[in-house]
Amino acid sequence: MALNLKTKTAHFDHPLYLESGRILESFDLKYETYGVLNKEKSNVIVVCHALTGNHHAAGFYEAEAKPGWWDGMIGEGKAIDTDKFFVICVNIIGSCFGTTGPMSPRGKDKEPYRLKFPVITVTDMVRAQRVLFNSLGINSAYAVIGGSLGAMQALCFAIEHPNFSKRIIALAGTYATQPWAIAFNKIAMEAIINDPRFKGGLYDKDAFNEEGLSSLALGRMVGHISFLSPDSMAKKFGRHYVETDGLYELFGRFQVERYLEYNSHNFSKRFDPLSYLYIIKAMNIFDVTRNFESLQDSLSNIVAKLTLISFKGDLLFLPKEMEEIKKTMYDLGRSSLVEYIEIDSKYGHDAFLVELDKFDMYVKRALE
Amino acid sequence: MALNLKTKTAHFDHPLYLESGRILESFDLKYETYGVLNKEKSNVIVVCHALTGNHHAAGFYEAEAKPGWWDGMIGEGKAIDTDKFFVICVNIIGSCFGTTGPMSPRGKDKEPYRLKFPVITVTDMVRAQRVLFNSLGINSAYAVIGGSLGAMQALCFAIEHPNFSKRIIALAGTYATQPWAIAFNKIAMEAIINDPRFKGGLYDKDAFNEEGLSSLALGRMVGHISFLSPDSMAKKFGRHYVETDGLYELFGRFQVERYLEYNSHNFSKRFDPLSYLYIIKAMNIFDVTRNFESLQDSLSNIVAKLTLISFKGDLLFLPKEMEEIKKTMYDLGRSSLVEYIEIDSKYGHDAFLVELDKFDMYVKRALE
Repeated sequence: MALNLKTKTAHFDHPLYLESGRILESFDLKYETYGVLNKEKSNVIVVCHALTGNHHAAGFYEAEAKPGWWDGMIGEGKAIDTDKFFVICVNIIGSCFGTTGPMSPRGKDKEPYRLKFPVITVTDMVRAQRVLFNSLGINSAYAVIGGSLGAMQALCFAIEHPNFSKRIIALAGTYATQPWAIAFNKIAMEAIINDPRFKGGLYDKDAFNEEGLSSLALGRMVGHISFLSPDSMAKKFGRHYVETDGLYELFGRFQVERYLEYNSHNFSKRFDPLSYLYIIKAMNIFDVTRNFESLQDSLSNIVAKLTLISFKGDLLFLPKEMEEIKKTMYDLGRSSLVEYIEIDSKYGHDAFLVELDKFDMYVKRALE
Repeated sequence: MALNLKTKTAHFDHPLYLESGRILESFDLKYETYGVLNKEKSNVIVVCHALTGNHHAAGFYEAEAKPGWWDGMIGEGKAIDTDKFFVICVNIIGSCFGTTGPMSPRGKDKEPYRLKFPVITVTDMVRAQRVLFNSLGINSAYAVIGGSLGAMQALCFAIEHPNFSKRIIALAGTYATQPWAIAFNKIAMEAIINDPRFKGGLYDKDAFNEEGLSSLALGRMVGHISFLSPDSMAKKFGRHYVETDGLYELFGRFQVERYLEYNSHNFSKRFDPLSYLYIIKAMNIFDVTRNFESLQDSLSNIVAKLTLISFKGDLLFLPKEMEEIKKTMYDLGRSSLVEYIEIDSKYGHDAFLVELDKFDMYVKRALE
């Protein structure tokens, strides 16, 4: 059977109540599905995307050279097998690919929210997805899976919607964003906020050159550092130069510099600065203990089978942060509910997007 | 005996020949000394400073609350004992504390060099120091010591001026700057170069507000991340907020964010953006194998006793980079010339400036 890729937008003309106490009066959710929903609606797998990802997780759009961001994982006979499962991936609230975010029209005058967009949290992202699923008659899932910010959403499903899914798979995540990751996000925030072309959020996108906002590119560059590791960079780039004046290597540019330029400038073309600010803020806020007494108290809500996959070289969300979840589940006497796997990888945080062959068997197994 | 702090500027009215093939027609070197030079001039210890440091390594200036950057190491009875040694620390070429750098006056019209300042290397920094020492009648040193960029200078002394000093002590350094560190520097470069107020190097300092250039502050923020570590940040800041609106922690600022703001904005008040660009470029270029066949070939020049001190939690220059030097010395059959010490520290790169009590005994021993 083919992938059966479908891209849709759902509009909700009623409010979304947010954790901050504020509301979105109406909202859109863009999402994508693969496979076929069975009659019992019992074969749903929810895939949660990361900071800069979107609903396009697998397959090709026409005229696109690259498939969705987790195409190696989702498809016929793949770890998330679309012959068996109905897979759904929703662009998160606050993002900029069709779901309501800071640049969406607001109220009667249809002006964009910009900085009037409310602060959003992972709780809100998950709550919005539940609204969509309910509208589709989906009241439970076979599994929820995600990496990085997607792992935060998966854990949020497990804790705040404990009966929604029997299986939760979280990769390269954490139970609470640590100051090291907040510091990386801080660079992006400062760069964007201090960029004169950002104009306190009142930027005119048409006034950007085709590369978008250079400060957003800079924020992304910092992200790229945190997604890699000293080892992966050494292997990938070494000290190679990409340009020399023919005489003196001194004046050349390093390959790693070109990589950062290329990837970050591509990014600023396709992503919105305000969405970036709102989503990294949501990541900073993320802390599963926030509305609980302790990590134990929070995790005691979990009744699903939890599969935690961390990557040794991950310098953004360290393996020990995921291990803390496992330990706490053990302390709670729930060792049978949790499986913790540390993948031997030097790749860094990005491993969950890149080194699929190192962990897709564990995902497959968790889905059996 | 008192510290006997002396701050001086030496002017040289002859050219400094640079590795790039270019010259500085004349140049100034600002430097500081502690202790007393003995008759034989055999008690000289050269202290090399790091990226943002300067010649003021120890003691207090009038009206200053903080002493020099390595005051805990240099003084009466300290590891670098000014009762025995004559200590000299020179502000490096390219810096902005009195030594010739990009904002120094040039030629007849006395306009600043700005981007006409030549690319400089660690080799040039060391060569300039040799010129000063020669002018003081100092043709050899008892020891050369430095951390980070200071360690690069110390290694350069060992390899390119092998007979200058019998003892070389390098802390938190590397044999060649790796892409991970180059990537961090890239963020600072991009931020500064794309800052409209930088004006392609033609900035008017008087037009900056008192905080200096915000992009330089941003570059420094990235630096601060690379100087610390996930563990040290977790211990220092946790997820504490410094401000809340009294109701919702959501909207507060994290302590780690305030730390980065405070330190980086202080920095941009006192440092020059062009100096920062030139010095990080020099760090990127640093590679002791650059003019040699191999690391073996390069290190085979060393005849001094080499003490290498690395810090376990250093994420900028990883311990294994220093260990590579040790291993290569062993491969060369020169194990007797090298001592490698890895300090158990979670502090990160900054440990060489902060956790003195963890390594000052090794420095003391190396100086015996």
